[in-house]
Parts: sequence; C-alpha cells; structure tokens
Amino acid sequence: MIVVMTAGATEEQVKKVEERLRGWGFDVHLSRGVARTILGAVGAQKDPSMAPMLEAMEGVEKVVHILTPYKLAGRQFKQEPTQLRIGEVVVGGPRVVVIAGPCAVESEEQILTTARAVKAAGADMLRGGAFKPRTSPYAFQGLEEEGLKLLAKARAETGLPIVTEVMNPRDVELVAAYADVIQIGARNMQNFTLLREVGRCKRPVLLKRGLAATIEEWLMAAEYILSEGNYEVILCERGIRTYETATRNTLDISAIPVIKHQSHLPIVVDPSHGTGKRQLILPMARAAVAAGADGIMVEVHPTPEKALSDGPQSLSLEEFAEMTAALRPVAVAVGRER
Amino acid sequence: MIVVMTAGATEEQVKKVEERLRGWGFDVHLSRGVARTILGAVGAQKDPSMAPMLEAMEGVEKVVHILTPYKLAGRQFKQEPTQLRIGEVVVGGPRVVVIAGPCAVESEEQILTTARAVKAAGADMLRGGAFKPRTSPYAFQGLEEEGLKLLAKARAETGLPIVTEVMNPRDVELVAAYADVIQIGARNMQNFTLLREVGRCKRPVLLKRGLAATIEEWLMAAEYILSEGNYEVILCERGIRTYETATRNTLDISAIPVIKHQSHLPIVVDPSHGTGKRQLILPMARAAVAAGADGIMVEVHPTPEKALSDGPQSLSLEEFAEMTAALRPVAVAVGRER
Amino acid sequence: MIVVMTAGATEEQVKKVEERLRGWGFDVHLSRGVARTILGAVGAQKDPSMAPMLEAMEGVEKVVHILTPYKLAGRQFKQEPTQLRIGEVVVGGPRVVVIAGPCAVESEEQILTTARAVKAAGADMLRGGAFKPRTSPYAFQGLEEEGLKLLAKARAETGLPIVTEVMNPRDVELVAAYADVIQIGARNMQNFTLLREVGRCKRPVLLKRGLAATIEEWLMAAEYILSEGNYEVILCERGIRTYETATRNTLDISAIPVIKHQSHLPIVVDPSHGTGKRQLILPMARAAVAAGADGIMVEVHPTPEKALSDGPQSLSLEEFAEMTAALRPVAVAVGRER
Amino acid sequence: MIVVMTAGATEEQVKKVEERLRGWGFDVHLSRGVARTILGAVGAQKDPSMAPMLEAMEGVEKVVHILTPYKLAGRQFKQEPTQLRIGEVVVGGPRVVVIAGPCAVESEEQILTTARAVKAAGADMLRGGAFKPRTSPYAFQGLEEEGLKLLAKARAETGLPIVTEVMNPRDVELVAAYADVIQIGARNMQNFTLLREVGRCKRPVLLKRGLAATIEEWLMAAEYILSEGNYEVILCERGIRTYETATRNTLDISAIPVIKHQSHLPIVVDPSHGTGKRQLILPMARAAVAAGADGIMVEVHPTPEKALSDGPQSLSLEEFAEMTAALRPVAVAVGRER
Repeated sequence: MIVVMTAGATEEQVKKVEERLRGWGFDVHLSRGVARTILGAVGAQKDPSMAPMLEAMEGVEKVVHILTPYKLAGRQFKQEPTQLRIGEVVVGGPRVVVIAGPCAVESEEQILTTARAVKAAGADMLRGGAFKPRTSPYAFQGLEEEGLKLLAKARAETGLPIVTEVMNPRDVELVAAYADVIQIGARNMQNFTLLREVGRCKRPVLLKRGLAATIEEWLMAAEYILSEGNYEVILCERGIRTYETATRNTLDISAIPVIKHQSHLPIVVDPSHGTGKRQLILPMARAAVAAGADGIMVEVHPTPEKALSDGPQSLSLEEFAEMTAALRPVAVAVGRER
Repeated sequence: MIVVMTAGATEEQVKKVEERLRGWGFDVHLSRGVARTILGAVGAQKDPSMAPMLEAMEGVEKVVHILTPYKLAGRQFKQEPTQLRIGEVVVGGPRVVVIAGPCAVESEEQILTTARAVKAAGADMLRGGAFKPRTSPYAFQGLEEEGLKLLAKARAETGLPIVTEVMNPRDVELVAAYADVIQIGARNMQNFTLLREVGRCKRPVLLKRGLAATIEEWLMAAEYILSEGNYEVILCERGIRTYETATRNTLDISAIPVIKHQSHLPIVVDPSHGTGKRQLILPMARAAVAAGADGIMVEVHPTPEKALSDGPQSLSLEEFAEMTAALRPVAVAVGRER
Repeated sequence: MIVVMTAGATEEQVKKVEERLRGWGFDVHLSRGVARTILGAVGAQKDPSMAPMLEAMEGVEKVVHILTPYKLAGRQFKQEPTQLRIGEVVVGGPRVVVIAGPCAVESEEQILTTARAVKAAGADMLRGGAFKPRTSPYAFQGLEEEGLKLLAKARAETGLPIVTEVMNPRDVELVAAYADVIQIGARNMQNFTLLREVGRCKRPVLLKRGLAATIEEWLMAAEYILSEGNYEVILCERGIRTYETATRNTLDISAIPVIKHQSHLPIVVDPSHGTGKRQLILPMARAAVAAGADGIMVEVHPTPEKALSDGPQSLSLEEFAEMTAALRPVAVAVGRER
Repeated sequence: MIVVMTAGATEEQVKKVEERLRGWGFDVHLSRGVARTILGAVGAQKDPSMAPMLEAMEGVEKVVHILTPYKLAGRQFKQEPTQLRIGEVVVGGPRVVVIAGPCAVESEEQILTTARAVKAAGADMLRGGAFKPRTSPYAFQGLEEEGLKLLAKARAETGLPIVTEVMNPRDVELVAAYADVIQIGARNMQNFTLLREVGRCKRPVLLKRGLAATIEEWLMAAEYILSEGNYEVILCERGIRTYETATRNTLDISAIPVIKHQSHLPIVVDPSHGTGKRQLILPMARAAVAAGADGIMVEVHPTPEKALSDGPQSLSLEEFAEMTAALRPVAVAVGRER
C-alpha cells in the first residue's frame, strides 16, 4: 500500500499517517519527492478498511494498492488451473465444454425435446431456468420447483448434468437438491447474502459476471463463495453494459485471457446473453473458444418464436447442432479438445 | 407495438406476424413502404413476452415499443406527485428533506453522537447501515440486529425516523420492525426476490438506482414493489458507472427531471456515493436541489478517518452543518422549503 | 513515479529498472515488501514516454503516476482562477455568463431575430455555427463564411461577442477574423492539429469536452492550446456518453467541482447537448450554476421545429427568457451574480 | 419513419405533423391506438434534418427510424463483400491479412529491422506512424515527412505496402504520395474535414473506430469517405471505452459479425490498442480471426522497452513470428487462408 500526500501536506499530517501505519504493524518507507511526499507501507494488509481510513485523513491525496484484493481466487494462491469434475464432465480441462438449453423450463415436452437434441449434438450439460429474474414483474417468472423436477427428469433420461439458477437464499437448499451446478445470475453477482449461502453448499457454482462489474469485482464475488469453503466456482462472462446498442451487451472476450492470467478458476462464455442476437452466437462462440474459454453456454429452444423468454437469442435445435460442429475445428486449432 | 420487417421479408412471413398479432387480440395496421413493411399493433399489450416472441420470428427485424413497460410507477397511472409521510416528515412535498448518518452503525457512541449532531443541524431522518453489502468478504459487514437496536435508540432520543438497508429476504421482517424506511441498495436493485418481499411489507422503501441501471429499469424495479401493493417508494439516485475515474461514480443529475417527467414517485439524491469524495458533496447536493430533487441523503461520521467504511466520502459533523446551511438558499431559489 | 514489480520479478530485472531510472537522473527508493518490490523514482519526469518504456520492461507489473500529466492547466501552476475578458464580459469572474444562440446560422433573419431576443433576455454572448460537424454527410453543413458574416452583423447590431466553431485547421485564420471566441467541438477535442493551430492564434478558445473524454484528457487537450502560448481557454462540459438512453448524453455536473479543484480555467456548461431535450435544459442549467459553473451555453431558435439542426434541444425565444430569469436566484444563492 | 405522439397530443398537433409529412412528399398512415396516436411516413426520406424537426414539434414524443442512415456503406447498397487490392494483397478476400509494424517510425534502423522481420514472419503490410496523435503535447509527435521517407525505403526493400496515419487535412496529399493505405486514427473518426479530404484522394483508407463510437456512427464516418467518391475503405476495430480498467480498451469482437451483417466493407482488428497489453494480443488476435475478421493489425517493435510510444502493447519480433504461426490454424478452422 502506498500513500500519496497532497502537494500542500504538512509535516504533521505526514507524521500522523506514518504513526498510523506503524500502529497497524507496517514498516514505513518515506520518500520525499520534488512535488510530493509518499509513504510506502510494507507488510501484510489485514483489513480492507485501512485504505479508506487513510484516504479520509487530512493531507492524503490517494492510496495506491499494490496487491489484488482477492486471495483465494488469485493465481498467487493457486498456480495450476482449477479443474472441476461434474459427473463425467471436467470443466477447466482440455475439453471445451458446451452447456445448452432453454432460457426457462416451460413444459415437460419442451425441456425433454431440447435435452435429447442437445445431447445428440454433443452438449455436455443442460441449462434451464426454473426461477427466472425478469426485468418486468408481469413477465413469466419460471415454473419453480416444478421446473426443477422437469430438469431432473431430463437428466435421468439423457445423463446430462443440470445447471440452473437460484435467486433466493431460501431456495438454495431446494435448488441444490436438484442441480449439479448452481447458477448465480448477473443481476445477483453482488447479492452477497446469496453468495455466502451458495458458498456454504456442496455444489459447484457458475457465477455470471454482473452487467457492469469489473473483473476485479467479479473475482471478489467469487472470493465470497470460496471464503465460505466452496472452491468449485466456474466464472461465466455474459457481456457487459456499454453505450453500444447494436448488441444487447458487449461480450468482453478479453476477459477470458485476463481471467486466465489473474485467476486459476475456469471460465465459460455465454454468447446468447452477450449479444442478444441469434446470428451473432456462432461467431462469438468461436471467438470465445479461440481466446481460450473453457466452455460455451448457449440458449437453445425447439421453437424460439414461442419461447416465453429470450427467443431472439436462442438457437433452434438445428442451429445448435451446426454450432457445435463449427466449434470443434476452432477448439482443435488452439490445442483444445471438443 | 410496431413490428418492422427485414428488407427481404416474404409475404408469408408478414402474414404470419399479422396472424399472430390478431390472434393475441390486436388490431393490425399494415404499412408497406418503399424499403420495409411495418405492422402497427393497436390494443393493450398484456404480456411482456410478446415482443421477444415476435422478434424471434423469421423476417422480423425489430419490434419498437410505444408504451413504457412500467404502469403503476408512471405519470400516466397517477398524475399528481406522490407525497409520503414518515413520522412528521413529508417526502415529495415542498420541503427538501435531508437524510444523514454514517455509512455503517459502528457503536452506540458513534450513532448517538451523529444522530444528535445531524438533528441539531436540521436533518429530517437518520441513516445508518446494520447490514452492509461489501465488495470484500473480509471487510466489516455490519453489526446486524445490534445495529438496528442502536438505531432505534437514536430515534428514541432524537425523534428522527430511521432509514436502514436490508439485503436478505429473510431479514425483511426484522428490519421492518425497527426501520421507518427500508433501503434497497444499488447492488440489489434487481434482486427481484427482495423487491417482492419489501413490496409485501408495510414500510416505505428507499430504492437506490443500480450501478448500471437505466432509468427505465429502475422504474421497473419500483414497479415490482408497487405491484405487490406497497405504494410508498422513494427513488434514490446515487451515481452510475461510467469510464470516468476522477469520481467514484458519475452522479446523474439529469435523472431528477427525467424521473419527475416520467413518474410520480419522489426522488432523493446521494452525493456521497455519487462522487466518493468529500469535497464534491456540497456542490453536488446544491446541484441536486437546484435540479428539483425532493431530498438529499448524505454520509456523516464524527471521525471520518476512523470510519469502518466510506470515510473518504463522509462529512464531519461540522461539514454537515455547513452543508445544510448552504442548501437552504438554493432550495428557496427553486421554490422549495428547507 | 512508482514502479511496481511483478511477484516473480528477478533481482536482475529489478536492477535493470533501477539502473534505467538512475540513468534518467532520478533518485531511486527501493522498497522490498512481503509480496512485491517497489521502486520510487524521485525527481522531475521530463518525458511522458518514460512510463510506457518502463512498463514494457520484463518483470514490471505497472507504473503508478504521482503527478498530473498537465502542467499549465493545473492549479499548481496557477493558484488563482483565470478570468477572461471578452469585450465587456468577464468569464470566470463573479457573474455567471450566458451564451445563447442557434445551433447553426441559417439566415440573416434567423440570426438577427435570435441575437436581439437573447440580448434582451440578458445573454452575454451569441453562439451560432457557420461550420457544422454533422454525423451524416447528407445533412446541412453550415453556411461557412457567409454564416460568419451574418454573425458579425448580429454582433454589430447587438454588441454581443460571438462564439463560433472551427473544424478545419485551414479555417482558423478566417474564423478568428470574425469570432470573439473560437469553439472547438466535442468531436475535435483530440484533433491535436487543430488544437495547436488555435493555440497559436490570439483568440480565446472554448474547448468542449469530448464525448468519451476523461477530465484528465480534457485538461491535456487544454494543455495543447496553452503550451502553444494561448492562455485564454474556457472549458465547456457538454455531456458524456454512457449506457443511459433517456437523455442524449449524461451531463456530468460533477465535472464542474472537479475542474475547479484541479484547474484554474473557467468552465461553462451546455445543457442543450448535455441532455438533448428541451424540457431538461432549465433544471440542468440551474444544477450547473448551483454546482459552481462560470456560465451556461444554450441553444435558442426562433422556431425550433424548423431548425436545420438540434431543434429538439433548442429553446424558443420565450423559453430562453424564462430560463435566464429562473437562473438568477440560483446564481445569487451560491454567491454569484447574474 | 414513424412519429409517435405524446399521450396528451391534441387533434391539431396530430394534424400539423400529418400536413408536414405530406408537404415533404410522404404518404401517411395514421394509427390511433388506445394510448397513443402514431403516424407512419412512407416514402424516401431525403434529408436527415426531417426527424429532428418533427421531434421539435409540439405533441411529438419521438421519431422512430426504420432505415439505416448510411446508404453507400450498407449491405443493401451492395450485397457482395468489397475486396480491395493493395499491391499483391487482397483485403476482404479469403486470406486473413496481417498488418504489422511499430507504433511510430523512430529511425531507419528501427523501421528496416522491423520491416524485414515482419516480412519474414509472413506480414502482408507494414504499419508505422510518421504523424502521431499523442495525448500529451510534450510526448514524441513523430518524424513527419522524414518518417514517410523511411517507410518508403522499407517498402522498397521488402515490397510490403505501407499503412500510415494522416492527422492534418493539409498533409493528405503528402501522405498519399508515400502511403499505400492512409489511416484515419480513432480520435479523428469524426473529424469530418479530414474524412472528406481523404474521400477525395485516390488511396485506400483504413478507418479506425472512435473510442466511443457506435457502429452506426462508424459506418456514417465511412459514408463521408464513400460519398466523396473513394470506395476503398477498410474498417478497423480497435477497442471501445468502457468502465473496465483491466484492459486499456474493451476490444469489441462482436463488431466484426455486426459489420459483416450491416456492411459490405472489410474489417480488420487491432488487438494492440484494443487491449494495451502484450500478453493479451495473441488470444485476442485469434478471437478476431475466429469471429470473421479480414485481418489483424498489430504493433511490433525490435525493442519494446525502448519504444517511444506504445511499448507495453508491442510485440517483439520473436513474439510476432509466434503470433502469425498461431493464427494460421484458426484461420483455416473458420474456412479462411493464411
């Protein structure tokens, strides 16, 4: 931690900062420049509140952080990439995994038809929402437990592990009883109550990036889960909010190599939410794989024009089969399997 | 709702869209232009899923919305501005209200000292967090129920109504038992489970705008609360995320007149979170009042440099007294009371 | 300048950085922390290329800047606020100035009618574009020199100094021959050729903030002009690009106090471009004045619905008179004149 | 064009809009809904000023555009993709082209060494700046004509066509005399004077996307060039400005398939500026190729740690050779050549 004093900071103000740093157990390196006095605090920073406290002191211009605020999620804590085994699937290994299914579970026929088709086309896991976060209170909110049961039925028939979202801390136990992977949606990325709750549960968690979350905040959200003892976290990039309106969100492909550099956690990419448009899914899925993603999560529906949500960004069953076929050569081109 | 077909849309595709619209009970106006065919759907749109379903149909380029998606939160539902009575305070009336207090309740002495001082300086309500949403799992997370009790003690002594945040749906009842106004934080603006829960409770709700929420999404979040039967919602602008780094967030002052135009709900502004810097609070509070805000919510701490959170953006007790004095002439200049 | 080494940086890498810094004439403070080695470079940094050179060295994680990159535009170079005299108007003094006029000069009648009306309502300067930067090559591009002559005619009659835009370095001399203040538009804020050119001319410059410019980049653009010897620069905040679509841009009111803190240059605010909507101009103009702006620049047109550009954000002559009347009490409330 | 009236619009206001539309030669379809009256204007919209004029009329809520504002740049104007021949290179054909070279031309040795090495590694064109747009007036601004001569020398020796930037309309002729492709930098994307000037010149233009430009604005900038008669435009995505700070910009990979859908112009991607970090260049270059880019433009320097600009985002000669080798299998995987 480095404390930069203002140009007009007095000797006394510098001294007070120094004393405080020493009081917290830091070694202090004082450096008086032409224009600024700077204090370097050497030692482990135990409490994240220290920096804002220093910044609130008189004569302090800013505090510069040297270390990342996340520990367990970082590469320095764990050098080798984390591989998660979910049934027979390994996320974070050589194989680029594909997670597919409808935005929302709507009926037995819909989910079973989809499950069979995506299985046949090579999907590794089945996604589908039973609890749906919807911008409008008047929109379809999901089949709830009934939806979970239909997902379980689809798993029983196809063998595909299930990824499904939880929104309410009260439902974590229920969802965990059915799901193989619990999804935290983008809007709940900083729902810390929910993060702690899934951190205490024994299920892998797929953590979507918030609409306007920095990569650092995203890793801090993962840290909440890890710090509760659940080390099985998969990150999911799904597009960030920018000024551009040609796409629903701007899929941040560069987040993939940044995450690979900063963290040991696996990362998958959702080009459906990331673009909002069916015709962009294939090129963006290819881009994600080329950039090093560990997997793709994509919305698939037997009849997108009848989907109760996200139809415009859902692939039909045929389009999905074409997509998986088209991903394979790209995966191989970057040294992965598919 | 207007459906714009692609340039190459076939007769049959147009017909399918028309049939579907009629099937849903709309009158359809068909307009064939030089370059595009357009279908105007006249009638009430009951289900928000209709537009995405249409967009997923072949030959459809886009669907243009004519009406706002919010109903109860809109000016058309209720012309006159909503005024909320909280104890002796009226939010949304002629008086510009001031809500002040520490980011987090830290101790009895801290909250009582603050409460007395802000009361003396003219504050109308006391804020203070007992449950704190923190980016880091290692940071101070609040005193929880103990904090709520201290807030109640401060209210008992000063008479100031209390504004405090709830994060967990399970805690809504508990928080409502102590608070006069329940706060939904920016990170939970689209925590729909929580919104429904406070919608069912008999307490006014202060709903902060999400970090990257559009004004429309913000009003839709309010709609969740209103649609559950709780009509007492106060909106709170607290800065949005932009690329600018000179401030913590970009306080969107223009949201005030936009909200006044679109909605009947009162709006207050939080220049502490909106800027992140103590020296910017006064000018931005003045700007908010000049633009028509119904109130200001500001962080105040007896010793900002010892605050467990948000010290750099907290006013000292003296600075707060200066601020309230400086707000009055601006309020009067725009025809308000203070 | 502080150089932070990566966690795995070798002794040799640290040594190479140290040698380089010493070679450039810096004193070096070396600080070896638990997790990172840090080098503090003390001395004047003469060349902005040093930091990127260091960052490109092996073992370097990042370089932290201590000083602002602008010099002449900064408060440390000049403590007292700059006041510019333009005819009888002083920008940056006690009076909040008002600059008004049409987006584009369209005809003699249009500009003279407007000039007379805004003069009568208390405007201090007349604005009007003769060279127009338009998103579409097919849109009206301005009357060019003919427009400048009409502006001069309006000045002759009303005595109002003229503010008008230059886009082409070749036209600087021509525009300077007519204008009292030369405007650099938002899209040209980093047109460095043009900045240098107006820096060499003897006319005050009104420098609009770029659509996505940080405050630091904006001050660096001003630095280009100042460094050529032209010290008469007025900054103009006109809204930044964000994800919000309810307004054309997001008017960054907090830029006003930030600029006042960082720079000695005067700042005016353009609520017309900042919002894009007529009904938002008055509240945002009031907000700007309340936050400390030195002036307001606003679009006015005798018949906005016939304006060749920017009609929806232009005030009618009556609306402008109402606005100036409504600004006065706010200016007084914050200790200014109007 | 569709005109949506406000909820309270009067008969007379509707009538005035209708008359105006008819006066401009449109057929008008009037549609009276439950809540809103809507007017559909059928016919060719000749003047981009019509929509803002309508929006400025009383009783009008908004105008919805049906057609894109660009014509010559759009797919509807020209169905088949544009292929540009530059020497022996074809941009927009089956081969993914690679443009490489230093940010700035610094010396004969630097540019010749680089040119030979990138040629040997398979580059198709040489880039290098002689006129440099720099944020700071105190930074190296380029060797100007001397730099152009060195580029010509490098071309003479290696046969590589040259891509170099022009900033000043006055220099277009000079730059065109040396360059094979004239580059318009991101900061000048809406420097309309410069766009017109290169539109009149007989050289292909590489048009970088502005830092905060929408895809529509970018195509409108291309339209400026095309509308002057120069049809040889290459678009270059180089990252957009977002709130994320882990990367210098956010490289918008989804712009590639969007452009391919909307326009016939070829698009290349610059992962150097797009990320600002050397270690992200390879994965992002691969992503761009996988998403369908027609080429990659990348910064290469013999000694990045001594580069006068952009060292941290420049590849060394060895790294560049590795990159081109690693791109080939991805290009082949998506059906391209390399």
